[in-house]
Amino acid sequence: MDNFDFIKGEKLQKQIKFLTVIDEMKKILRRNVILGGSRRENDAEHSWHLAMMALILEEYAAEKVDIERVLKIALVHDLVEVYAGDTFAYDEKGNEGKLDRETKAAEKLFGSLEGGQGEYIRSLWDEFEAMETPESRFANAMDRLQPLILNYMTDGHTWKEGDVHAPQIYRRMDIIRTAAPGLWHIVEGIINTSIENGILKP
Amino acid sequence: MDNFDFIKGEKLQKQIKFLTVIDEMKKILRRNVILGGSRRENDAEHSWHLAMMALILEEYAAEKVDIERVLKIALVHDLVEVYAGDTFAYDEKGNEGKLDRETKAAEKLFGSLEGGQGEYIRSLWDEFEAMETPESRFANAMDRLQPLILNYMTDGHTWKEGDVHAPQIYRRMDIIRTAAPGLWHIVEGIINTSIENGILKP
Repeated sequence: MDNFDFIKGEKLQKQIKFLTVIDEMKKILRRNVILGGSRRENDAEHSWHLAMMALILEEYAAEKVDIERVLKIALVHDLVEVYAGDTFAYDEKGNEGKLDRETKAAEKLFGSLEGGQGEYIRSLWDEFEAMETPESRFANAMDRLQPLILNYMTDGHTWKEGDVHAPQIYRRMDIIRTAAPGLWHIVEGIINTSIENGILKP
Repeated sequence: MDNFDFIKGEKLQKQIKFLTVIDEMKKILRRNVILGGSRRENDAEHSWHLAMMALILEEYAAEKVDIERVLKIALVHDLVEVYAGDTFAYDEKGNEGKLDRETKAAEKLFGSLEGGQGEYIRSLWDEFEAMETPESRFANAMDRLQPLILNYMTDGHTWKEGDVHAPQIYRRMDIIRTAAPGLWHIVEGIINTSIENGILKP
């Protein structure tokens, strides 16, 4: 059934429609796998895990953060992939058209909401992308650390698949150094141990 | 790899361990399926979707809510299932031992954190279960509405599988009537339309 004519008011109809459209996040697969390696992780799971990491690791943020804002950013930061799809972080070619693809997706998805709500969700996404606030920098740091840990615990699954070398990971993780400096030694520990154990190329 | 000896300090080691243990949420399957019906939904996806519903539908809360608290409650409300498993809402027998199972799971999972953090997460879960605050009542309302919408849009998948009748759903949804009265007509609309279309027994 997809008949929601009984919903009173266009605003609420659009809100419920939006909430059903984003169910698609459960089907958008990322490159990394879940622990145990049985299957790839999807965007909905990733967003939840990211929010949990922000909640548990808040104290390591370089600057005091408004955790409410961080959690909201974490929840919505990948929503545009409902229309734009996931782009592998280490795929240089795929990342070329990413901004354009995602901007169009944002207009379509967030534009479907009324009463300033679309603009509000858009502002959360824009903030995440711009990395100009303590909240968005910390959210980005968590967004890097989450797959790093999963890849490490699944014997470098994504690194092997994408032929990723250590310097690329260091570059990608760099935001952790400034946004959550107390966690930077985890990045170093994971990369060093992975190289030593042959699951990551130096 | 599961060697995290390089992490400095027992507190941080336990936090990272906790964040890897709860990856299990991605493997705990609920009774309902995701839209399209290709597979069952897992707890991590559900928790994310629930948090998104709270974010988008906050204005319909009967009493003004602290949305930060609601989002935190939504993120952690099913964590105990990492050790206790999912219990089908309409399984009377399964629900008999549920509180005991989940309390033990809470002690094990949240007890693994240090410095008051376990107690804090536990307080969020206790609040959700007790339904004594506006935040927890609204979170519970969203926790009911989310699978209702998914079941409706997947032709009553779970209702058929569990031989669920309309009065059981009305009872389970009742918290929506008081915690988000502006959404109650959606419950009625879904149930009435489902009965009319033969996907739910009256």
